[in-house]
Amino acid sequence: MKYKNFPMVPKVVFGRGCFSQLDEILMPKRKSDEAPFIFLVDDVFENDNWILSRIPLLFNDQIIFIPTDEEPKTDQVDALVEKIRQDATQMPSGIIGIGGGTVMDIAKAVSIMLTSQGSSADYQGWDLVKNEAIYHVGIPTISGTGAEVSRTTVLTGPDKKLGINSDYTPFDQVVLDPELTKGVPKDQWFYTGMDCYIHCIESLNGTYLNAFSQSYGEKAQELCDEVFYNGNLTTEEAQDKLMMASWHGGMSIAYSQVGVAHAMSYGLSYLLGTKHGIGNCIVFDHLEGFYPEGVAQFKKMKEKHGIVLPTGLCANLTDADFDTMINVSMGMDPLWENACGKNWKDTITPEKLRSLYEKM
Amino acid sequence: MKYKNFPMVPKVVFGRGCFSQLDEILMPKRKSDEAPFIFLVDDVFENDNWILSRIPLLFNDQIIFIPTDEEPKTDQVDALVEKIRQDATQMPSGIIGIGGGTVMDIAKAVSIMLTSQGSSADYQGWDLVKNEAIYHVGIPTISGTGAEVSRTTVLTGPDKKLGINSDYTPFDQVVLDPELTKGVPKDQWFYTGMDCYIHCIESLNGTYLNAFSQSYGEKAQELCDEVFYNGNLTTEEAQDKLMMASWHGGMSIAYSQVGVAHAMSYGLSYLLGTKHGIGNCIVFDHLEGFYPEGVAQFKKMKEKHGIVLPTGLCANLTDADFDTMINVSMGMDPLWENACGKNWKDTITPEKLRSLYEKM
Repeated sequence: MKYKNFPMVPKVVFGRGCFSQLDEILMPKRKSDEAPFIFLVDDVFENDNWILSRIPLLFNDQIIFIPTDEEPKTDQVDALVEKIRQDATQMPSGIIGIGGGTVMDIAKAVSIMLTSQGSSADYQGWDLVKNEAIYHVGIPTISGTGAEVSRTTVLTGPDKKLGINSDYTPFDQVVLDPELTKGVPKDQWFYTGMDCYIHCIESLNGTYLNAFSQSYGEKAQELCDEVFYNGNLTTEEAQDKLMMASWHGGMSIAYSQVGVAHAMSYGLSYLLGTKHGIGNCIVFDHLEGFYPEGVAQFKKMKEKHGIVLPTGLCANLTDADFDTMINVSMGMDPLWENACGKNWKDTITPEKLRSLYEKM
Repeated sequence: MKYKNFPMVPKVVFGRGCFSQLDEILMPKRKSDEAPFIFLVDDVFENDNWILSRIPLLFNDQIIFIPTDEEPKTDQVDALVEKIRQDATQMPSGIIGIGGGTVMDIAKAVSIMLTSQGSSADYQGWDLVKNEAIYHVGIPTISGTGAEVSRTTVLTGPDKKLGINSDYTPFDQVVLDPELTKGVPKDQWFYTGMDCYIHCIESLNGTYLNAFSQSYGEKAQELCDEVFYNGNLTTEEAQDKLMMASWHGGMSIAYSQVGVAHAMSYGLSYLLGTKHGIGNCIVFDHLEGFYPEGVAQFKKMKEKHGIVLPTGLCANLTDADFDTMINVSMGMDPLWENACGKNWKDTITPEKLRSLYEKM
């Protein structure tokens, strides 16, 4: 048996208000006054002075606002890299992502592509990146995806939705300031938090599980339970704990994998552009056959927080549409193998997936 | 409030038997055939072919066996650095520590001192190291200390027992192979495991606690409970879980601190050379005034595993001896502040410490 040698984020600061320390964190990493920091910021903050005033701009540093109504795409990454190359006379000092999972993934991908040739679509897969990325910092403003700690950046490309999984993907620095999540709308808070909860269920019920992943997954699930289920926390405690849940949930899949919900939601997202968090929820809601306890608790949490999931997504799809989704989903071999074992193809058939998609 | 920007181990491999992957982990880090890897190995393995045969020696690589019957000392570190400098024509490619907390701490200190001037005693304290250490790898063979993940290396110097706390201290790579712990004698297994348990109690009951430390500390304590208290695990499960407990316990004190047991056991260790694990146990056994629940459970675990702690350590000490211990202990300001708050000096007096030491 060969074990993964997993890259971890080498530097992390945690605390309410620690975003204000960004200035001193970046200062020693500035290479010259011609080598800017590029801040990729969720465009929800475009008029948010509480955030923007604390971004330590100097010289020719740039803020680029990132639209996040769609999942991140390879051509979006390629266009950003092209723009940054054209604007700057020198390689940037670093890329700073400030936002949710979409911005985290775009920041990771841009930092990789600034030192690699071709299109980001060429690197979707496992360990295809050969050059070290430039210095990159992740500052999550919503909790759940685990993108701040993972070694992947999930992108939708011309022919697949798949991560750039590499040792150069993880951030060099993460700033965990739970206060930054205070403005997240309730439905998004729930969907993104459930991304973490679903990571835990998929990891803890997977065949890849070991004691490393288990310990992180159990803790992340406990924290999700505190935040979404048993719920007797102050607003601040809930923000703090959900940020740690996301972190531990991300670590949990370091040695294991996600499972059925992620595999199927990739199909939805590829065809329909469904955002990752809500897509996972829509799928997971129908997975009682795979994860009976997890789905039962999910339904209770949904009810407790008054969340109503959209229905009928697949009502008007053609056979070709279903085939596209099924192909994308069944292409995620490691996820299915983790969920159902090496012989997953015996039970996971196109017909089975179609019947599940038809319910959504 | 200013938060620490904490350095984490950037690469970790976990799994039973992953020690056999050391070869491929080190290969890309070898700088030349004149730049050896130096393996610092607990001398308990001096005739252990199961371990030694898997150490990938090449060219002028060296194994140096480290006696571990005493706590690590600054002059021991200085002598090792001197020997390595004399033996090698080039700066080593890296230092690989294979052993318990003593070997972990010596490996970290040697890797720092190979790029720093003077004695390691000059760097005992916080953030005194100015140069990056050489590449260093930690491979724990006993679980509990958290030394594999911490940013300190605790050394006994000419006038204090104190860590070299710095951003350059953490290992560049950790190899977590629970199988390596299979030969640990029962009493040492208990004392070192309790080091982790005590970390958790001190961290979770400290004034420095935040959600980051809390999540790691709670998980580490749960794992300790599974291993030492509720105990329905196979031998292998217990080895796996205790290795993860040590890891999470070490992470828990990243943002908090240890407390009374560590502060007082540093005194014992400085004066009497008491080893860290057993020293913590001897002290903690008398701390029901500080940690009532933790100490009550500790006593039950001690009984369950038939552990009898030594007594009468302080029976024949002079007043000067007591003063030495009390001075060393009371010099650990952050530990006392974490345990008892900013005004700790109001309640922690030399008389109080003397009365506690007299019981030991």
